[in-house]
Amino acid sequence: MAIRVTVWGENVHEQTSKVVAGIYPEGMHQAIAGALNRAGGVTATTATLQEPEHGLTEARLAQTDVLIWWGHAAHGEVSDAVVDRVCHAVWSGMGAIFLHSAHFSKPFKRLMGSPCNLTWREAGERERIWLTSRNHPIAAGLPDHFELEHEEMYGEPFGVPEPLETVFISWFQGGEVFRSGLTWRRGAGNVFYFRPGHETYPTYHDPNVQRVILNAVTWAHNPAARLQDPGAAPNVPVDKAPEPITERGPRLHGDGDGGFR
Amino acid sequence: MAIRVTVWGENVHEQTSKVVAGIYPEGMHQAIAGALNRAGGVTATTATLQEPEHGLTEARLAQTDVLIWWGHAAHGEVSDAVVDRVCHAVWSGMGAIFLHSAHFSKPFKRLMGSPCNLTWREAGERERIWLTSRNHPIAAGLPDHFELEHEEMYGEPFGVPEPLETVFISWFQGGEVFRSGLTWRRGAGNVFYFRPGHETYPTYHDPNVQRVILNAVTWAHNPAARLQDPGAAPNVPVDKAPEPITERGPRLHGDGDGGFR
Amino acid sequence: MAIRVTVWGENVHEQTSKVVAGIYPEGMHQAIAGALNRAGGVTATTATLQEPEHGLTEARLAQTDVLIWWGHAAHGEVSDAVVDRVCHAVWSGMGAIFLHSAHFSKPFKRLMGSPCNLTWREAGERERIWLTSRNHPIAAGLPDHFELEHEEMYGEPFGVPEPLETVFISWFQGGEVFRSGLTWRRGAGNVFYFRPGHETYPTYHDPNVQRVILNAVTWAHNPAARLQDPGAAPNVPVDKAPEPITERGPRLHGDGDGGFR
Amino acid sequence: MAIRVTVWGENVHEQTSKVVAGIYPEGMHQAIAGALNRAGGVTATTATLQEPEHGLTEARLAQTDVLIWWGHAAHGEVSDAVVDRVCHAVWSGMGAIFLHSAHFSKPFKRLMGSPCNLTWREAGERERIWLTSRNHPIAAGLPDHFELEHEEMYGEPFGVPEPLETVFISWFQGGEVFRSGLTWRRGAGNVFYFRPGHETYPTYHDPNVQRVILNAVTWAHNPAARLQDPGAAPNVPVDKAPEPITERGPRLHGDGDGGFR
Repeated sequence: MAIRVTVWGENVHEQTSKVVAGIYPEGMHQAIAGALNRAGGVTATTATLQEPEHGLTEARLAQTDVLIWWGHAAHGEVSDAVVDRVCHAVWSGMGAIFLHSAHFSKPFKRLMGSPCNLTWREAGERERIWLTSRNHPIAAGLPDHFELEHEEMYGEPFGVPEPLETVFISWFQGGEVFRSGLTWRRGAGNVFYFRPGHETYPTYHDPNVQRVILNAVTWAHNPAARLQDPGAAPNVPVDKAPEPITERGPRLHGDGDGGFR
Repeated sequence: MAIRVTVWGENVHEQTSKVVAGIYPEGMHQAIAGALNRAGGVTATTATLQEPEHGLTEARLAQTDVLIWWGHAAHGEVSDAVVDRVCHAVWSGMGAIFLHSAHFSKPFKRLMGSPCNLTWREAGERERIWLTSRNHPIAAGLPDHFELEHEEMYGEPFGVPEPLETVFISWFQGGEVFRSGLTWRRGAGNVFYFRPGHETYPTYHDPNVQRVILNAVTWAHNPAARLQDPGAAPNVPVDKAPEPITERGPRLHGDGDGGFR
Repeated sequence: MAIRVTVWGENVHEQTSKVVAGIYPEGMHQAIAGALNRAGGVTATTATLQEPEHGLTEARLAQTDVLIWWGHAAHGEVSDAVVDRVCHAVWSGMGAIFLHSAHFSKPFKRLMGSPCNLTWREAGERERIWLTSRNHPIAAGLPDHFELEHEEMYGEPFGVPEPLETVFISWFQGGEVFRSGLTWRRGAGNVFYFRPGHETYPTYHDPNVQRVILNAVTWAHNPAARLQDPGAAPNVPVDKAPEPITERGPRLHGDGDGGFR
Repeated sequence: MAIRVTVWGENVHEQTSKVVAGIYPEGMHQAIAGALNRAGGVTATTATLQEPEHGLTEARLAQTDVLIWWGHAAHGEVSDAVVDRVCHAVWSGMGAIFLHSAHFSKPFKRLMGSPCNLTWREAGERERIWLTSRNHPIAAGLPDHFELEHEEMYGEPFGVPEPLETVFISWFQGGEVFRSGLTWRRGAGNVFYFRPGHETYPTYHDPNVQRVILNAVTWAHNPAARLQDPGAAPNVPVDKAPEPITERGPRLHGDGDGGFR
């Protein structure tokens, strides 16, 4: 069964910048979704900031195996209720891929628990992306390195928690480096960050970039049933303890009480 | 120079439960701080929920090398502004130790980016804490295992991100296990979670528990100067690039613009 | 296409102990392989210590997607040449699953680079295996915990490198705990250790244990083409550098020299 | 008390290459040890391949808190007995720092359990080392990046296990990147790899490089008492189990037997 992907796009600069509109006439989200659909094995649809609830209703997330997120100018306009919903879905098992400037998006920062900051320069310089883990599933079918002739620079230190694995590191013409592909797990959900994708360059038309995103979708997809309540903290009554025990000493909670939160 | 520790206590059950007040007549925070001060090398003071700004002003956090947090009944009463401030301090380099029911405290959940849930049972059962990493600094001077005759049970799965290292695992009489000592880094700050410490038992009077907390303070202390702006994302102008480059292609940002957030 | 599994069994106690022979009349390796074959999606065959080259020729390893290893009494009889070959295959992309007493097998110790020691007791006590990561692929379809009524105890500290992820932790009736399911990557190969399986108990007939092994096979399988030379350290000639550079300063190596090893 | 460091140098090219002898007239090991001694807080001595037992007797290792290793041309001449001894000391708690071409040294490969390979080019190009973890103890006092005008290139993928933390990443003029500072723990010993230091360039005279090595010594030093038998796998007799149990079922081992290895 095809993996169901929702590509979320902020869809701001596509409307306000002729440069961006020229590169992505249907929007960046459509370019990303289109490449996934052409690859096969994936059914990709899109959602944008401007839709009601940013297109990310409970129902929509329940039908999404992997969510891809691109945002930049309008991070602050994303409603906190939707951010909560997205994080809840990740913890329940939805995969999440954050692209480029989504390092500063609300859901990414929430999932990381850290500042997610970096240095940057918009000079159209050359980026060369190196595999650090050649046989990682996200690197499947890729050469040991590939180039993007024009990209924005992102530089270290990148303020994220130590990842499960570092998959890619970027070299920049201006002299910086950046950990461009990193994996984490949050609850039952797999999370991948992939650096390239400044909106004034045709990065998402690049076949290697498209391949990384497709691989990441496959990697992030958790086929297990979605957890209904990923934050549940159930009490185990004394008489249901795996080993027989007798209650001893004082306690705070009455029988059947929930815990404090 | 002594490490400056602030022990934050919710200080609710000490006021409302005779059992808790009997075990910790000065409050749990005072018991923890007292043990640290007697150990030497540390200057521990306390702060509580009931103080203005919960006792955690900017000035106080700036003077705190390591913050210890115990909360349970009143997680929801902790103001979001103080939570922001605490996380900011951790990212800047302040160490943070979260004890027992603080797994559900707002700052811990914020720093983890995950549900932090578990199973639990309040039956006064025996807990045996095993070292998984015998020569880890947080295990210094401890036996391979030690017991707490009466404790609340916490059971796996524990909904936290994979740690840098697992230092302790608990065995419970009723049949469960739990990763009781875990380390992470968030920004420039070291974070440690330590499980024991239900308020109806004399856990913080236990010498082994006190030793763990003292060790964890030493481990969590980052002697580097506190970062002033841990979320800074500075632009590197083209003429300041480490390697000489020439700007190419279109760009979104004007000279001197800040980035989007 | 079915995943090709080779189950390697030491096959000593099956020949020398009536107890073991009674439980595993065809050998432990056959019991494990049989369960995998019945599950489907896997083609499992066996190899044993007593075969020429222990049944693990270059050709055999080249046809093995995932190797499962059980050994105990005869670790020292495994030839170093075969150990080299197995490690080379793992680095090239073959998955490897080490069961129970294989914690002290030569290939596991070689791949870990650490002592791999633990404490132990052979008393037929109850083991309860807890999931620490409920939606990990290796935990698919399993309950939050399951029991083995009779097992050998293994206790912490377990002398292995910090894993990528801790998937299972065991509780023992006698009071110990153990990290029973751990993952690593070594070169292009995925490595999993799973604790249960003392030969005097019917552990490999247990459906939950069989499920873990099947899941681990799927997880460990790396579909990428096997690396031909996983230790290659190629020189990149100056005129093939990704960016044009001019050689400067003194050098040790002549044109076309290999590096030192 | 000062940390006792032994700097092990292969001491081959210093004797055979005028270029190397010109840069390091007393040998690279003496240059490294001298810088440490001038910094204070450390007592550094040296040992070389040419000494009996390569200068690394049991007694010498027992007096060594942190061992620094530089080798290149003569990896194969290091005796396996000494390699065993070094690994045993690391597992017991000795810190170990491997420099540059020591990525292919026998003890490093043994401790990693992986090929430790990379790509390389000897062209005297510029290397720029970036901090990925600005407040890590090994980065203390260093700028966000520093340069070595002439270095050998090492390129990804670097065939090592995923580290505990990535501390440095290098940018190379010719277009490659490399994870230049990585940490692991093996048994009770802390292990750090640091990339720079090709023998035909004056890298170990660079103040930033010296600072990294000094920081790494402090980080790697484990003040705990050295484990006497880091591979011990003690039997826990039934009557010494933490919880009272009764032996059940068949067993292989007689009372007081050691385990199999």
